[in-house]
Amino acid sequence: MVGGGQGAFIGDVHRMAARLDGMIELVCGAFSSNPRKSKASGKALFLDPKRVYKDYREMMLKESQLDKNHRMDFVSIVTPNHVHFEPAQLALESGFHVVCDKPVTFSYEQSIELKKLAKKNKKLFAITHNYTGYPMIKEAKAMIAHGELGNIRRAIVEYPQGWLSTRLESSGQKQASWRTDPKKSGKAGCMGDIGTHAENLLEYVTGHQIKKMCADLNTFVRGRALDDDGAILLELDNKVKGILFATQIAVGEENNIRLRVYGTKGSLDWSHEDPNSLLVRWLDKPKEIRRTGVGQQYLTTQHAIRVPAGHPEGFIEAFANVYKNFALSLNDIHQGNKPNPVHLDFPTIADGVRGMRFIDKVIESNKSKTKWTKF
Amino acid sequence: MVGGGQGAFIGDVHRMAARLDGMIELVCGAFSSNPRKSKASGKALFLDPKRVYKDYREMMLKESQLDKNHRMDFVSIVTPNHVHFEPAQLALESGFHVVCDKPVTFSYEQSIELKKLAKKNKKLFAITHNYTGYPMIKEAKAMIAHGELGNIRRAIVEYPQGWLSTRLESSGQKQASWRTDPKKSGKAGCMGDIGTHAENLLEYVTGHQIKKMCADLNTFVRGRALDDDGAILLELDNKVKGILFATQIAVGEENNIRLRVYGTKGSLDWSHEDPNSLLVRWLDKPKEIRRTGVGQQYLTTQHAIRVPAGHPEGFIEAFANVYKNFALSLNDIHQGNKPNPVHLDFPTIADGVRGMRFIDKVIESNKSKTKWTKF
Amino acid sequence: MVGGGQGAFIGDVHRMAARLDGMIELVCGAFSSNPRKSKASGKALFLDPKRVYKDYREMMLKESQLDKNHRMDFVSIVTPNHVHFEPAQLALESGFHVVCDKPVTFSYEQSIELKKLAKKNKKLFAITHNYTGYPMIKEAKAMIAHGELGNIRRAIVEYPQGWLSTRLESSGQKQASWRTDPKKSGKAGCMGDIGTHAENLLEYVTGHQIKKMCADLNTFVRGRALDDDGAILLELDNKVKGILFATQIAVGEENNIRLRVYGTKGSLDWSHEDPNSLLVRWLDKPKEIRRTGVGQQYLTTQHAIRVPAGHPEGFIEAFANVYKNFALSLNDIHQGNKPNPVHLDFPTIADGVRGMRFIDKVIESNKSKTKWTKF
Amino acid sequence: MVGGGQGAFIGDVHRMAARLDGMIELVCGAFSSNPRKSKASGKALFLDPKRVYKDYREMMLKESQLDKNHRMDFVSIVTPNHVHFEPAQLALESGFHVVCDKPVTFSYEQSIELKKLAKKNKKLFAITHNYTGYPMIKEAKAMIAHGELGNIRRAIVEYPQGWLSTRLESSGQKQASWRTDPKKSGKAGCMGDIGTHAENLLEYVTGHQIKKMCADLNTFVRGRALDDDGAILLELDNKVKGILFATQIAVGEENNIRLRVYGTKGSLDWSHEDPNSLLVRWLDKPKEIRRTGVGQQYLTTQHAIRVPAGHPEGFIEAFANVYKNFALSLNDIHQGNKPNPVHLDFPTIADGVRGMRFIDKVIESNKSKTKWTKF
Repeated sequence: MVGGGQGAFIGDVHRMAARLDGMIELVCGAFSSNPRKSKASGKALFLDPKRVYKDYREMMLKESQLDKNHRMDFVSIVTPNHVHFEPAQLALESGFHVVCDKPVTFSYEQSIELKKLAKKNKKLFAITHNYTGYPMIKEAKAMIAHGELGNIRRAIVEYPQGWLSTRLESSGQKQASWRTDPKKSGKAGCMGDIGTHAENLLEYVTGHQIKKMCADLNTFVRGRALDDDGAILLELDNKVKGILFATQIAVGEENNIRLRVYGTKGSLDWSHEDPNSLLVRWLDKPKEIRRTGVGQQYLTTQHAIRVPAGHPEGFIEAFANVYKNFALSLNDIHQGNKPNPVHLDFPTIADGVRGMRFIDKVIESNKSKTKWTKF
Repeated sequence: MVGGGQGAFIGDVHRMAARLDGMIELVCGAFSSNPRKSKASGKALFLDPKRVYKDYREMMLKESQLDKNHRMDFVSIVTPNHVHFEPAQLALESGFHVVCDKPVTFSYEQSIELKKLAKKNKKLFAITHNYTGYPMIKEAKAMIAHGELGNIRRAIVEYPQGWLSTRLESSGQKQASWRTDPKKSGKAGCMGDIGTHAENLLEYVTGHQIKKMCADLNTFVRGRALDDDGAILLELDNKVKGILFATQIAVGEENNIRLRVYGTKGSLDWSHEDPNSLLVRWLDKPKEIRRTGVGQQYLTTQHAIRVPAGHPEGFIEAFANVYKNFALSLNDIHQGNKPNPVHLDFPTIADGVRGMRFIDKVIESNKSKTKWTKF
Repeated sequence: MVGGGQGAFIGDVHRMAARLDGMIELVCGAFSSNPRKSKASGKALFLDPKRVYKDYREMMLKESQLDKNHRMDFVSIVTPNHVHFEPAQLALESGFHVVCDKPVTFSYEQSIELKKLAKKNKKLFAITHNYTGYPMIKEAKAMIAHGELGNIRRAIVEYPQGWLSTRLESSGQKQASWRTDPKKSGKAGCMGDIGTHAENLLEYVTGHQIKKMCADLNTFVRGRALDDDGAILLELDNKVKGILFATQIAVGEENNIRLRVYGTKGSLDWSHEDPNSLLVRWLDKPKEIRRTGVGQQYLTTQHAIRVPAGHPEGFIEAFANVYKNFALSLNDIHQGNKPNPVHLDFPTIADGVRGMRFIDKVIESNKSKTKWTKF
Repeated sequence: MVGGGQGAFIGDVHRMAARLDGMIELVCGAFSSNPRKSKASGKALFLDPKRVYKDYREMMLKESQLDKNHRMDFVSIVTPNHVHFEPAQLALESGFHVVCDKPVTFSYEQSIELKKLAKKNKKLFAITHNYTGYPMIKEAKAMIAHGELGNIRRAIVEYPQGWLSTRLESSGQKQASWRTDPKKSGKAGCMGDIGTHAENLLEYVTGHQIKKMCADLNTFVRGRALDDDGAILLELDNKVKGILFATQIAVGEENNIRLRVYGTKGSLDWSHEDPNSLLVRWLDKPKEIRRTGVGQQYLTTQHAIRVPAGHPEGFIEAFANVYKNFALSLNDIHQGNKPNPVHLDFPTIADGVRGMRFIDKVIESNKSKTKWTKF
């Protein structure tokens, strides 16, 4: 693991997610740019002190020198955005598979580079767009892919948060500080941090890709350098129309990503506040509430469920589904097989590239006086 | 009453709303362009046959010739859009106050003309933007006006319906037929029919007015002449940002108008599917569910409530609040007083004018290649 | 109308409900035991002063002396419980049909007497168990009657309120005062006031009748003479098991009557907080949300709906459905016909008798040390 | 671990819960009464084959012979009810701490025996009443303990499931088979399996204990030997009144345990369908929705949260909170300290004893013709 030392938020999530299914063991790490902090973090995680490294360069080097059965199988990169590219590049070149947090890199060009490297080195590269891990999201995707909703006409994805509605970064809060700093976060603030999740969820579920957009970004909190709010009109392929809305200044909103999709036969409504329900509206039948694990569901959905119906699956379980499928695919490969398509249902570097492209285009569209900007 | 003969939908709603509080009595009408149908409708309503007229011209003439204590006090116009202007004009010129359905006229210019006429003839002119009649909408408006939410930053108003997701008008369904016919409905379809409700609700509650917009309208159902869906980015005064979304092709949606407003201190969320609740989110306190009639509420809210807390007030009650305040204002005038400000809390011709302007600007913005169109 | 003078709550509800559909006109009244207050109330209602009477005895006498086309058709009794029996008796004996609030009388014996009188005089006698007026309650009843749920096994009806959680009656609040006074309310407090609504709703929807019960009543507020809370285990016919729970000390609850019914094939869940939805759970299909006016519904349901789907029907509309069906049945009779069965779908004196029996049995069971008390 | 071999449900849940926080490692097991199945299960869990035992007797013996630093620290017992007592007894006598599924034993007497043994051997004994692990349940308990609701007057706990609404056990389904078999499950069916969860949740949150009860149990599915449904009137200490309702024949219900508590100042409502929300109703303030991780919460609540507000914590996380506190207490002990009171917040053998007593008394009360049975 690269990053995720004491005090970090997402490192712990990655570790819980990786642990959950008993298929992945944390064996080494470079948990902080501060070697002492890295050591302390490794100790708290009961790691062999020899495999707690002072930085990721050392880790890649030393681990690649271990014999095949003892070295790590893959690297998880959970650092801020500006420290994604180099460790990922080094990992791929040193022969390791990669799991990386989103957005995958600091710039679009870097993401293209990683995509090439992963292909060249034949390595798996997962991105933790974790919302795609919820069972009812997988059910939604499958329902649309199987034509249950007819042709899709319109989609709305929104992601309101409120935690940055004041200038939290000036208090020294770590999560706020790097996310609002263009040197660490990249070109976009809100749109990079959570807008990319919304974009990924929209494209994953509908199976349609954004073709053009009209963005209006805002920075509501004075003194902040990056956007903290934005609304975007979208056109996807097949003339599907969309709205993407993301904000971090919506006072009192927690983490309420929601997706609605309207087709010619039916429509879907999923919200992170009730992630185990999927509201389905039909043209000619009563509304339905489909629930995790209730009744006959698609194979990818079943595969994403751990407990019987009525036992809520939460955020960590959804996150863990990225790791689980990544690990199962890795296992398929280790056993000399082509990965099972069900196992390959996790976000990859290709999704990462689209996310970076999305950021570039949102910034471009926001500056443009012309209505539509091509994706 | 003009229009609202047998088979119409909204005429009945107007009559129930007018009746509810026992302050208004239907005394005459021209219920249909077909005189025989008008007569039959009047009979079913237990009216004096002499006061059931063959058309609105006859009604205005004959009623204005009755002595003051016996003639009607005001006219309700509940016809399709293209038959709003003339009866309203005639009513104002004949000395009658007016209640008119929305959008108030066929063209923007006509609405300006009616505004002038109402002013010149000192007549009250109500528009039935009925969603403003809900108690919790009045509470929301008052909370914002009293600064409870701080400065408003962002608002989202949406109005999804699904009833026009197929080509219903080709089946001869009356409501669908005129609403999708540019000769009866005007320049806009969905945006005129329900978009104007959304625009009115947004401006009424926030107290901010639209300054510029970027509209993307769609006609998803083949063969339809007018828009049946649209999304609009907005900027209101004081740099408030907004999204307005209205659609009639959202399969399975009933009539789900919803408004969210985010301020610096708190935020509001109201949905027509649960109209007696108002979700309030705070920066530093737990979320609250404020409910019709529970606890101390603003005067305009109290005035809009008929039954104790926990007894749901519905669509007809909200609609009746437009009539109630109109009737109370009329009564104030009849008694020689200036209307009580609480009684004047109903939508007027000024709101009607803004609605028509909104329609013009939405159409203009939709055609424009430039991002922003000034309102 | 008997009772319902200025300051009363339920009188206004009766009048709004009666007015709503334009079939009933208030023509006379004895609105208060205080003649001056009665006069003032009548004036505020725009009544002919000659027909505003000093008491109900005078009203029955004078109205019965008017000729058939001018006298009132029926009497509405909206007084506290101890003033139901005499005016109802007098009305039936004077040739008037009756609408009476619940519980129908002060004692069980009185209710039997009224049932006999109504039969003897061939008069309609409606009880305003208004919750049966909601469209989705009618749909629930019809679904069960048509076997959609299979055999019913268990039902749960609950009715939590919180308005009597403090000793409100000592503040002089009118509604609280008579309801907690055994001389005005009768043997039971909470169980008479709202328990009877719950009992009626349960039997109306399921079509099963209570056969035995085990009651545990409580008076939580010190100094109160009657029960303010109670829970009852029930057995209905056909071995259906039930729970009835009613309380008025549930702090913060508004008026949240809810009914759940579980059958062998499906189950129903309806709550007054969302009265236009009916949650249906199936053995082998996804959960459904059936909604007022959406899709094909039973005839009695359709007949109870006034506005299109998505336009919430509230408490007054449900209440008005009792008056509407009563008026339509009266109209059928006036025209010499047998009332249409759909029109007869309103609660009658037979329901009133069951309610009074319920009160007697609850009190008996509560005192008993034996588990089960036969109904 | 004892039990939880391939095909079991709850064994996997225990393992995921134990793994989640990285503090517990599965080192050995006797996963099945079938030695071959036990071996296969151990292999699938990547265990050292030497520590996969043919039965729990062998496991206790062999592990107790290992040196202190290498042998297991505690035993998890996840077998059906009739195989709880012996392994627990053996574990305690062999010097191991115990985590055991509920109900803790087959008979009340056995539970008393285990309580004594645990005390005598100074061992921790946790029971996986996992619903007490939800953060908002901990918040509810703390709010009541700190008097926020005033004096508690009434509580309602309900636990509807629908999975046994048909005779599933005759299909050979493993979970259904042993739970409906008196030789494996014990005296009670539904009341033992889920009624004890409800009883535990009620007492845990309110801090009040059941003093007497009036139970009505049912077996709705023909041919079933044990109860599959029941309703119970309760009196707790301090004259708190209660209702406990549990059923497994409520068609379409998933696993919907819900607790409502009404006090003199406020009331609480928590439901497993939305476990991260706690509805709080007040006497004199608007209703609140308190949410996991939002705002300042009690220490025991904070300690039970793993991710920031808005990231749903699910069933496994709640379950894991039992293991986490058990492990932290164990760690406190290993380090020679008295366990931190916050760490001791997990259900123990004392709760297990109360659960067994509850089962005995429910059966006794159900058979009794007298209303109240003392607890």
